[in-house]
Amino acid sequence: MKRIAVSIGDLNGIGIELALRHHREACTICQPLYLIDEQMLKQAATLLNAEIPSDFEILAPEAESFTIRPGRVDAAAGAYSFASFRTAVELAAQRECAALCTLPIHKQAWELADLPYKGHTDALRDFFGAEAIMMLGCPRMYVALYTEHIPLRRVPEAIEAEKLTRFLLDFRRESRIREPIAVLGLNPHAGDGGVLGDEEHIIRRAIEEANTRLLQDPASQIRKRLFEGPLVPDVAFAPRSRRRYRHYVAMYHDQGLIPLKALYFDESINVSLNLPILRTSVDHGTAFDIAYKNADPKALSYLNALRYAAEYGR
Amino acid sequence: MKRIAVSIGDLNGIGIELALRHHREACTICQPLYLIDEQMLKQAATLLNAEIPSDFEILAPEAESFTIRPGRVDAAAGAYSFASFRTAVELAAQRECAALCTLPIHKQAWELADLPYKGHTDALRDFFGAEAIMMLGCPRMYVALYTEHIPLRRVPEAIEAEKLTRFLLDFRRESRIREPIAVLGLNPHAGDGGVLGDEEHIIRRAIEEANTRLLQDPASQIRKRLFEGPLVPDVAFAPRSRRRYRHYVAMYHDQGLIPLKALYFDESINVSLNLPILRTSVDHGTAFDIAYKNADPKALSYLNALRYAAEYGR
Repeated sequence: MKRIAVSIGDLNGIGIELALRHHREACTICQPLYLIDEQMLKQAATLLNAEIPSDFEILAPEAESFTIRPGRVDAAAGAYSFASFRTAVELAAQRECAALCTLPIHKQAWELADLPYKGHTDALRDFFGAEAIMMLGCPRMYVALYTEHIPLRRVPEAIEAEKLTRFLLDFRRESRIREPIAVLGLNPHAGDGGVLGDEEHIIRRAIEEANTRLLQDPASQIRKRLFEGPLVPDVAFAPRSRRRYRHYVAMYHDQGLIPLKALYFDESINVSLNLPILRTSVDHGTAFDIAYKNADPKALSYLNALRYAAEYGR
Repeated sequence: MKRIAVSIGDLNGIGIELALRHHREACTICQPLYLIDEQMLKQAATLLNAEIPSDFEILAPEAESFTIRPGRVDAAAGAYSFASFRTAVELAAQRECAALCTLPIHKQAWELADLPYKGHTDALRDFFGAEAIMMLGCPRMYVALYTEHIPLRRVPEAIEAEKLTRFLLDFRRESRIREPIAVLGLNPHAGDGGVLGDEEHIIRRAIEEANTRLLQDPASQIRKRLFEGPLVPDVAFAPRSRRRYRHYVAMYHDQGLIPLKALYFDESINVSLNLPILRTSVDHGTAFDIAYKNADPKALSYLNALRYAAEYGR
């Protein structure tokens, strides 16, 4: 069973509760190694009135311990969650662990702790000097985002053929997909022959080129054209189309995340591809409003994140 | 029971089959008046091997009869479907019928018949010299489109405060909604405080103004702020948010139609609001591939379209 480094997230939030209460299920998926020290773990377990399983393997990050205050945005909690994350990244980079699964941090707590990163993905880009590919989803549907956190008005000009071709090939290689991938158009009705926008010409060229290069690449062992599109965006996520595709490439953030969250909100995970390490994450926040309240938060996202890490980690 | 004019759509397509096979259910909703002549009706019924119900009330449009050829794009079928539609519009405009429900026409058949319209909505705008508001959905979720068939790159500049304010008020009045209406932001994370785009400032102003005017309008009899937002687009359609809202205003075509078709593809209808008449429509095409093949096509959309017409027709 693969060993997965689990960074523990903001300890004033919900992460440690997920880790403690779902450790049994986690152990059926992988061998989790939690980045937390014994004192903090005991403190959290006491607050949660939870037992610490005897096989709950931990490793202490280099960070000051502090008093857990459920639901509080706190510099010490921010610093601790960063140290836990940083150590987990190192373990994955050194191949001590097959992948890294992150529990939620609080961005403001990182700010208070004077950390120069907006979040995990931002930090990973800096650590590795590489552009991560952001893929979100669950086993029934994954969406990779060609553009992410940019204003909508900047999206059309970001559609470039060579850049998109490389994105498609990187995404395919890193996700190891061997089935058809739905590449979305940008405009309503995918431009309707140019009447409603013409970026689909660029997307079509990128798809052609990516298919050609993929077929020519002996390392890929792919013998069919995997990239299909540009698809009409609003039809692409209708039930019939979802029976054909499990993987989508969205041109912009909301094009992919609106249908994903409408359909599979609780199950979704966030995967960072195209980096020297594989990182998966729950697709929810610290849930300060229900932390340490015995709310028994849903662990679908957390367990799916572990599953992906265990299946695709190296 | 309200009388609803049903334009029969392209007779080489699926419309007449829906009308004939679901007449019983239709009669529990309204008193349908079908715009088709006896000869064409008999021809279709024979091809479908279907009985013509004795209470199947018809009125002949002024059009040449022709030989039905299932699945064919045909000028005569195009001209007939337009005449059926035109007559149904007149009946609604003269208040002979409370509303109009359209079965699907084929745009290319209209082109072949030298008709100067791209479709129903286009024709309605011309007939009444008014901008229709396009709302799509089903009883569980309706989406009104602030912009419709324009390229994505034209959307940001179309966000104007006064225009949006008027859109919100027109939509509210015509749909007679008395519960909260979700107004979406434009950018990912609704701009995240301006970092990811700033059109949300305009949207926020329009929402404020619309709420103020609505409260000041004694005719509305509304005593609370109905317009809420700008909402984070990808969270707005997640299950928790959908428990709060049944009506959404989308800033662009795919923002509203991607989640609608992902969730409620078969049930959805298309409603034209803000015109002198109310028009509802099925939200699917002529389905030439299955026309006259005893495929027993789903009538969820058709019956929902009749229901809306019967409930809100005047």
